[in-house]
Amino acid sequence: MIIITKPDTTEEQLQHIVERIGEWGLKAQISRGAVRTVVGVIGPEDAVREKPIAAIPGVESVTPVLKPYRLVSREFRDGNPSIVRIGNVPVGGQEVIVMSGPCSVESADQITSIAGEVKRAGARVLRGGAFKPRTSPYTFQGLGVEGLKLLAEAREQTGLPVISEIMDTKDLEVMEKYADCLQVGARNMQNFSLLKEVGRSRLPVMLKRGMSATIKDLLMSAEYILSEGNLNVLLCERGIRTFETYTRNTLDLNAIPVLKKETHLPIVVDPTHGIGLRDHVAAMAFAAIAAGADALMVEVHNSPETAKSDGEQALLPHEFEDLMRRARAVAEAVGRTL
Amino acid sequence: MIIITKPDTTEEQLQHIVERIGEWGLKAQISRGAVRTVVGVIGPEDAVREKPIAAIPGVESVTPVLKPYRLVSREFRDGNPSIVRIGNVPVGGQEVIVMSGPCSVESADQITSIAGEVKRAGARVLRGGAFKPRTSPYTFQGLGVEGLKLLAEAREQTGLPVISEIMDTKDLEVMEKYADCLQVGARNMQNFSLLKEVGRSRLPVMLKRGMSATIKDLLMSAEYILSEGNLNVLLCERGIRTFETYTRNTLDLNAIPVLKKETHLPIVVDPTHGIGLRDHVAAMAFAAIAAGADALMVEVHNSPETAKSDGEQALLPHEFEDLMRRARAVAEAVGRTL
Amino acid sequence: MIIITKPDTTEEQLQHIVERIGEWGLKAQISRGAVRTVVGVIGPEDAVREKPIAAIPGVESVTPVLKPYRLVSREFRDGNPSIVRIGNVPVGGQEVIVMSGPCSVESADQITSIAGEVKRAGARVLRGGAFKPRTSPYTFQGLGVEGLKLLAEAREQTGLPVISEIMDTKDLEVMEKYADCLQVGARNMQNFSLLKEVGRSRLPVMLKRGMSATIKDLLMSAEYILSEGNLNVLLCERGIRTFETYTRNTLDLNAIPVLKKETHLPIVVDPTHGIGLRDHVAAMAFAAIAAGADALMVEVHNSPETAKSDGEQALLPHEFEDLMRRARAVAEAVGRTL
Amino acid sequence: MIIITKPDTTEEQLQHIVERIGEWGLKAQISRGAVRTVVGVIGPEDAVREKPIAAIPGVESVTPVLKPYRLVSREFRDGNPSIVRIGNVPVGGQEVIVMSGPCSVESADQITSIAGEVKRAGARVLRGGAFKPRTSPYTFQGLGVEGLKLLAEAREQTGLPVISEIMDTKDLEVMEKYADCLQVGARNMQNFSLLKEVGRSRLPVMLKRGMSATIKDLLMSAEYILSEGNLNVLLCERGIRTFETYTRNTLDLNAIPVLKKETHLPIVVDPTHGIGLRDHVAAMAFAAIAAGADALMVEVHNSPETAKSDGEQALLPHEFEDLMRRARAVAEAVGRTL
Repeated sequence: MIIITKPDTTEEQLQHIVERIGEWGLKAQISRGAVRTVVGVIGPEDAVREKPIAAIPGVESVTPVLKPYRLVSREFRDGNPSIVRIGNVPVGGQEVIVMSGPCSVESADQITSIAGEVKRAGARVLRGGAFKPRTSPYTFQGLGVEGLKLLAEAREQTGLPVISEIMDTKDLEVMEKYADCLQVGARNMQNFSLLKEVGRSRLPVMLKRGMSATIKDLLMSAEYILSEGNLNVLLCERGIRTFETYTRNTLDLNAIPVLKKETHLPIVVDPTHGIGLRDHVAAMAFAAIAAGADALMVEVHNSPETAKSDGEQALLPHEFEDLMRRARAVAEAVGRTL
Repeated sequence: MIIITKPDTTEEQLQHIVERIGEWGLKAQISRGAVRTVVGVIGPEDAVREKPIAAIPGVESVTPVLKPYRLVSREFRDGNPSIVRIGNVPVGGQEVIVMSGPCSVESADQITSIAGEVKRAGARVLRGGAFKPRTSPYTFQGLGVEGLKLLAEAREQTGLPVISEIMDTKDLEVMEKYADCLQVGARNMQNFSLLKEVGRSRLPVMLKRGMSATIKDLLMSAEYILSEGNLNVLLCERGIRTFETYTRNTLDLNAIPVLKKETHLPIVVDPTHGIGLRDHVAAMAFAAIAAGADALMVEVHNSPETAKSDGEQALLPHEFEDLMRRARAVAEAVGRTL
Repeated sequence: MIIITKPDTTEEQLQHIVERIGEWGLKAQISRGAVRTVVGVIGPEDAVREKPIAAIPGVESVTPVLKPYRLVSREFRDGNPSIVRIGNVPVGGQEVIVMSGPCSVESADQITSIAGEVKRAGARVLRGGAFKPRTSPYTFQGLGVEGLKLLAEAREQTGLPVISEIMDTKDLEVMEKYADCLQVGARNMQNFSLLKEVGRSRLPVMLKRGMSATIKDLLMSAEYILSEGNLNVLLCERGIRTFETYTRNTLDLNAIPVLKKETHLPIVVDPTHGIGLRDHVAAMAFAAIAAGADALMVEVHNSPETAKSDGEQALLPHEFEDLMRRARAVAEAVGRTL
Repeated sequence: MIIITKPDTTEEQLQHIVERIGEWGLKAQISRGAVRTVVGVIGPEDAVREKPIAAIPGVESVTPVLKPYRLVSREFRDGNPSIVRIGNVPVGGQEVIVMSGPCSVESADQITSIAGEVKRAGARVLRGGAFKPRTSPYTFQGLGVEGLKLLAEAREQTGLPVISEIMDTKDLEVMEKYADCLQVGARNMQNFSLLKEVGRSRLPVMLKRGMSATIKDLLMSAEYILSEGNLNVLLCERGIRTFETYTRNTLDLNAIPVLKKETHLPIVVDPTHGIGLRDHVAAMAFAAIAAGADALMVEVHNSPETAKSDGEQALLPHEFEDLMRRARAVAEAVGRTL
């Protein structure tokens, strides 16, 4: 931690800063410049990270030296990437994994038929929402537990493990009964009660980046889950909110190489929500693979114009098949399989 | 709803659009321009709002005519504002209400002493966090139920009703036992499970705007609460996330006149979190009142440099007293009391 | 300047960093922590500010200790504010100055009549665009020099000094002939050629904040003007670009107290462009005064629905009169006149 | 144009709206819903686009039916892409073109040696700044005309055509003398005087997207250049400004497929400024190609740690060579050459 003092900080204030640091069990190293005095804090930074140093009179700014996350950091695994398994499907290895399915589970027919089609095209994990976070209380809120059962049936028939979103701490038990991977949605990325709850689960968790979450925020939220004992976390970039209105969100592919450097956790990209325009999902999927994504999540529906949610961005099965074929070439160009 | 078709939309596609609209029980009115054909959808817009119209082949864009919210809209109360009571304190009337207290409840001494000081200065509601949403799992997470009890004791001594944050659907019962108003934090603004839960409470709810929530998003989240039967909702502007890094957030005072026009619900402004810099809290508080805010929430601590959270932005009691005195003059200048 | 090294920085790399600092004429002070080594750079920071320190192998990050601006900083005038005169009107003193007029000068009648009305209501400076920065090449581009002449005539009749926008370095001479203050628009805030040119003018310059400019960027652009010798600069907050679409821009009133602390230059606020909605201009004007603005710029038109630009946000003369009356009360509440 | 009226719009106001539309030479078609009345405006939308319709009493909102740009639109060339030549190098065809070189021209040695190295690695165009837009007036401002001459010499020796930035309308003549392509920087994207000036040039223009420019804004700025007669325009995505601070900017690759659909102009991507971190330039370059970019602009320096600008993001020649080799594989995977 490095403390920069104000130009008019008095000697008395400086002493008070040094004392406070001492009270917290660390040492202060004073360095006097022509204009400002800089105080270096020597010792374990964790001990002072949460202290309100900036509130001490005379302090102008505080710069941390170390990262605030530990378990999620790349160093924690000595620079090696983690492989997280959804059912028997390994995410984070050589193969780029594609998760696919409809936005919402709507009926047995719908989910089974879509599951079959995405499997044929090469998807390795089935997605489908049973509990749906919708902006409006007047729109379809998901089939709930019934939807989870339908997902489990589709798994029976196709062998694809399933991922579905959890929205409430109360639902962990039922989710664990039917799903293979828990999804924490963008709107719940800083729902810390939920993060702690899934941190106690035996299932892997895919944590989606919030619409206004920095990369650091995302890593800190993942740290919550790992700190509860669940090390099987996937991070998912799904678009951030910017001033641009042409696209639904701004898929931030910059996050991929940055996260690959900062953390050992596998990186998933959701081009469907990310750009939110069906015509452009494929281009963003290819770009995500080229930038180094470990997995993709792509929405597919066999009748987008009657879908109960997000029909305008879902691909038709034949469009998805085409995407998979072309994505394979890009994966190979960057030394991976798909 | 107004549908604009693509330049190359075929007659067949147009017919298909008209049929879909018919299936949903509405009428289509076609208007052919030189370049584009526009289809007006006549009938109750609510019936089609959630339909994936944009997914129908040939559709370029869809423009709603009506607002997606109903219960929160100003029209719902014939243009009149609502008054929401926290304990016996009316928010939304002539008097600008100030809620104040520390970020977190830390001890009996701390909360009681601060409660006494803010009351003397003119605060009408006591704030204090018992369950704390913290970015890092390694920082102080609040005293929990113990904190709620301390708040209730402080209420005994001062007569000030208390507001505190609820973070988990599981906690509603205990919150109702001790608090007078439930706060839903910015990070949970789209935690729809929580919104539904507090929508069933008998207590008023203060809903804080999410860091990347549009004004429309905020109103839709409030609509969730009202649609469950709880009409006692306060909206709180507390700063949005922008590219500016000098301030902690960008307090968006533009939201005040916009919300006053759109909704009957009272508007609270939190300048402390909004700008996040102790020196500038007062200026933003005055601006909020001048722009029409019904209430302010201001953090005060008697020892910011040892506070367990957010010490760097809390005011000292004497600073708060000074703020109140000057705020009173601004309130009077815009025809209100404080 | 404080340099934080990477965890795997070698002793050799560290020596190389120290040598580079030496070459630039400064001294390095090494401080070894358990995990990271920190290198403090002792000496005039200006000398190394533009050096690519982050490009030296082994460097993880570089934190400046001092502000990158000098002439605009509050310290440069020992903490005192500057008063900048537009004609004979002092901006930055006790009186809150209101500049008003139409978006564009359209005709002799239009500008003279509006000038008369805003003067009667209490405006002290007349604004009007002759060269107009328009998003589309197909919309009204302003009357050019003819518009400047009409402004000068309106000044003759009313005695109000005039401010108008300069868009091209070629136009300085003609602008100086007719205007009393040069406006540099938001879109040209980092048009450094133009900044240097107006820095050589004898007229004061009002510099508008760019739509994505940080407060620091704004101050750096002002520094360009001052560094060329023109110390008469006004800074104008006029709304930044955020994700919010309800308002045209997000007027960032947080910038007012921050700028008052950082710089001696007077602060102008433009609520008209800032919020971009006629109904809400007054609320934002009051808020700006309460937050400490030294001046306001408010657009007025006597026939908004036939205006050649920005009619949808201009106030009618009687609305402006009402705004002025109420603004006066707010100004007095914060100890100023208007 | 579709006009939505307010709920309380009177019959008289509605008539007034219809009359105004008539005065402008168009026809109004009224469509009365249960709650709102919608007025369709029939006729050439260009005629009313700049009219302040929203300022007419009773109007709530105005939705355009057509795009505001014409010459840049894909339809203008019947859906075909344009090929723009820089010297003899065609951009927009089968081959992905790479432009490379240092941020600034610093000396004859520097530019000649870097030019030789990037040519060997496969770059087809040489970049180098002679006039530099710098945030601070105290940093290196470029060699000016001398820099242009050095660029021309490097072209002599390598055969690579050169692109360099123009910052002032006064400099067009000298730029035309030495450069093969004019670059308009992000900060000047809405410097409309400059856009008009380069619109009269015989040289192609690469227009960089402003940091807070929407895709529509970018297209409108390009429309300025084309409307002056210069059809040889390249659009360059170089990162937008968001709340994320880990990366210097947020390279918005979503813009690539969107622009490919909206316009016939070739798309260039600048990963160097876009992400601003040397380690991650390659990943973003690959992603840009996979998303469909027609060209890349990549900064290379042979001594980043002594570079006079932007050294922290420039690649070393051997890093650039590696990038080119791997980029070739990605280009081939999406059916292009490099």
